[in-house]
Amino acid sequence: MSRSALDVSQTKDFPAWYQAAVREADLAEESGVRGCMIIKPWGNGLWERMKAILNGAIEATGHENCYFPMLIPLKHFEQEAQHVDGFAKEMAVVTHHRLKVIDGKLQPDPEAKLEEPLIVRPTSETIIGSAMSRWVRSYRDLPLLLNQWANVMRWEMRPRMFLRTSEFLWQEGHTAHVDEADAMAETERMLGVYRDFAVHALALPVIDGHKPEHERFPGAVETLTIEAMMRDGKALQSGTSHYLGTNFAKAQNIQFQDDQGEWKHAHTTSWGLSTRMIGAVIMAHGDDDGLRLPPRVAPQQVILVPMLKGGEADEAIKTYCQELAEALRAQSVFGEALRVRVDLDADKAQNKRWRWVKKGAPLICEIGARDVENGKVAFLRRDALRTEDGKINSQVVEREDFPAMAAAALTEIHTALYDRASTFLAEHTHQVESFEDMVALFKSGEPAFAKLAWSRPTGEALETVIKRLKDHQLTVRVAPFDQGEVRGKCVFTGDQAVENIIVAKSY
Amino acid sequence: MSRSALDVSQTKDFPAWYQAAVREADLAEESGVRGCMIIKPWGNGLWERMKAILNGAIEATGHENCYFPMLIPLKHFEQEAQHVDGFAKEMAVVTHHRLKVIDGKLQPDPEAKLEEPLIVRPTSETIIGSAMSRWVRSYRDLPLLLNQWANVMRWEMRPRMFLRTSEFLWQEGHTAHVDEADAMAETERMLGVYRDFAVHALALPVIDGHKPEHERFPGAVETLTIEAMMRDGKALQSGTSHYLGTNFAKAQNIQFQDDQGEWKHAHTTSWGLSTRMIGAVIMAHGDDDGLRLPPRVAPQQVILVPMLKGGEADEAIKTYCQELAEALRAQSVFGEALRVRVDLDADKAQNKRWRWVKKGAPLICEIGARDVENGKVAFLRRDALRTEDGKINSQVVEREDFPAMAAAALTEIHTALYDRASTFLAEHTHQVESFEDMVALFKSGEPAFAKLAWSRPTGEALETVIKRLKDHQLTVRVAPFDQGEVRGKCVFTGDQAVENIIVAKSY
Repeated sequence: MSRSALDVSQTKDFPAWYQAAVREADLAEESGVRGCMIIKPWGNGLWERMKAILNGAIEATGHENCYFPMLIPLKHFEQEAQHVDGFAKEMAVVTHHRLKVIDGKLQPDPEAKLEEPLIVRPTSETIIGSAMSRWVRSYRDLPLLLNQWANVMRWEMRPRMFLRTSEFLWQEGHTAHVDEADAMAETERMLGVYRDFAVHALALPVIDGHKPEHERFPGAVETLTIEAMMRDGKALQSGTSHYLGTNFAKAQNIQFQDDQGEWKHAHTTSWGLSTRMIGAVIMAHGDDDGLRLPPRVAPQQVILVPMLKGGEADEAIKTYCQELAEALRAQSVFGEALRVRVDLDADKAQNKRWRWVKKGAPLICEIGARDVENGKVAFLRRDALRTEDGKINSQVVEREDFPAMAAAALTEIHTALYDRASTFLAEHTHQVESFEDMVALFKSGEPAFAKLAWSRPTGEALETVIKRLKDHQLTVRVAPFDQGEVRGKCVFTGDQAVENIIVAKSY
Repeated sequence: MSRSALDVSQTKDFPAWYQAAVREADLAEESGVRGCMIIKPWGNGLWERMKAILNGAIEATGHENCYFPMLIPLKHFEQEAQHVDGFAKEMAVVTHHRLKVIDGKLQPDPEAKLEEPLIVRPTSETIIGSAMSRWVRSYRDLPLLLNQWANVMRWEMRPRMFLRTSEFLWQEGHTAHVDEADAMAETERMLGVYRDFAVHALALPVIDGHKPEHERFPGAVETLTIEAMMRDGKALQSGTSHYLGTNFAKAQNIQFQDDQGEWKHAHTTSWGLSTRMIGAVIMAHGDDDGLRLPPRVAPQQVILVPMLKGGEADEAIKTYCQELAEALRAQSVFGEALRVRVDLDADKAQNKRWRWVKKGAPLICEIGARDVENGKVAFLRRDALRTEDGKINSQVVEREDFPAMAAAALTEIHTALYDRASTFLAEHTHQVESFEDMVALFKSGEPAFAKLAWSRPTGEALETVIKRLKDHQLTVRVAPFDQGEVRGKCVFTGDQAVENIIVAKSY
């Protein structure tokens, strides 16, 4: 049994492994609509878990959820040329509001052409800013702290499940403040919420810090980011928080009277986290047997597979499983009752085991007639599925001990996944002293983040840096908050270094 | 204080009252995008509460949530001419996937015209049916029980907040079954879920039953509905559940092999409930002082308004409120901790009282320095805000008694709202024996449902009935499950009656 569950390994072909992992876990599939995917129950359950936890943190920091229209008039985008030039040109454009059968063929009715096209929102700064301009009058109305959970659309020519899809689901926070200090504090607070969410909900170690100027969100004065390392060494930008200065407030006319009666522009922020994070969970924790889900977001935490033989013992096995499930649900972990499923599908127990292994369920129990007789539970821990020689690592414990042990194991699994990913990140982050060393590092084919010092060049010097990096498919991911010592000369310009940065390939 | 909080009364101008109620409760506002509204925090909180309760019931009946693309290729609609002819012609059509500045003006890029237009989903039978055709192979795959929470779009020429908006939020269930019996059982089960949700979550009495054939969902073999009576006597269709026979399965090719190896078409159902239900809550429970929210779905159940004077006593009042809030949160009702908010906004206590009255918060407490000294709590019950002569009905109780009393009061408020609406429905439902009596009933201007017997005419006779009703802005709402005795002759045809039906004006 040393063959892995997926038919392609991470080291052999990571992109193919990713596709197989998504497919075999039954997370999502192509829809036939270009760039849009169907999120299936296991993938949707994962997102709902993520949503519940992150939403709690967003509400606990004083934000209120609302819902804005998905269609935005074209003129909103005209007001913000910079916004459009930046990233938002590839958008779905609604031009008609009716279908009609013409010449026997169903088509847009020419008589129902919209006077002004509507855009399916790629993000909602413009429409929310326009509402803020009506809602904000006085400094007493600030801060205005809004969030929405929504679907958004950015036309993708080269889509990839969860990582880059034309339609995706996310939350977008939009806030307005009296001054820069308050807005920057918010920008940092929300990045902290994302970091804590990554660490505590997803067992995902991240590097938090600033984006360099040329990687900022268009129109932002400051973009903060959390970057995670995938098992192939690529970086995945996992959540960003933007301080927008008064740029959007000026474009949208968000003004307030301060306590002296003077009219001022508000300082705004925005921050978002999307279904892309499902991709991060897959690629940071998965192995050649498929997904390994962090227990806090796993839709089901313990799976009970009754090993039925079609004989007399079957009823007793089912009853044993149902009673065990109840005992498990009476336990709690991370402040909630355990999520437990008894898999009664009509399929072989062996197939079911592997289905749940590939789905990444944290604990999988297999209950046969012998276990019922002897009052035992045999189980697999998905994070430690195999022994060093590749054999399946099944454990057997007393039935009465299992519920408490399962709750404890879920906490341990979270920690084990986090520690493994942290070690991986640490071991594959290398300080480099020269451009050549950096190129050699990435040429080696090993997973790698390069940590290096630079002089934060601008203008033409920066253009040169960007181009030299691009030639090797590299980008500056982040200038970490945790700078440590900044030593020596800039790897690019030879000038005195002022900042440490992380350079990597990325999704 | 006998003047009401809203400046227009229900009896004087119900549509204007409705607009005022929505505006003054700060539930939602126009967005500037035709037919689309912004759902503000209080309205969104109401929907999130409704969603959580209904979702629990949908999952408890074995359904799994998933998420399908919002853009549907035009060809899916061609396959179902009947579907399109029925209701779905007014749809938002995406024709381009890029914007470009041409002649100095931002517009759809002619070079990015889609080969096939995409439709923003008006409902998802087609795209989900297409997925089901891939997922269903054997009778073992059935029943397939899916649900999604999504935004949908149906172009509205005469939009009205919550009741008729171009974009709205809903859940749509889609299921496939081996035969008619199983699919009809599902159709009935889900209507039961909607009825229980209306009664237990929204305190809304409803009449459940069948739609007559001519009022069915296009393509449905059977449409079940729950109908509620608004305070103006109009009916609001509050949730529908459709048995689609094999119509959609044939169009979408959803086939399975039965246990004899024979290929058969699945029998499908669909059922949906939308943000329209917020309109039902407003119009069934509201009064001339604004909203009266059923406690289970009220975003906040108890509001504490500290009556601050800007003096030394203020801190003690705030502390008293915070401690009281904690004591209230330690109580539970409907199986959850009480939702409590201390309103510390910078505004006069009097204004805050009326704001929360209009928002419909079930319990509103006003805490002044005297209450702190004497250990008292003064509160208003929103469902019994005024005495018979119109005075505000404020009660004072001991601080220590209040938390348990508040929890009990919330249950009572639910029951009181339900009972009041039930009495209203019963008192305004009249048996009529002739068409003339029915016309006279609705001409009276009083809120009314007419209950009458008919012969269930078909063909031309039915067309005549529909037209005669339409002349008085009436429709057949439902043939109730609870038929009682069917007596005498059909009110329309004079033939022997076979069924009792409810006729009313409607939203």
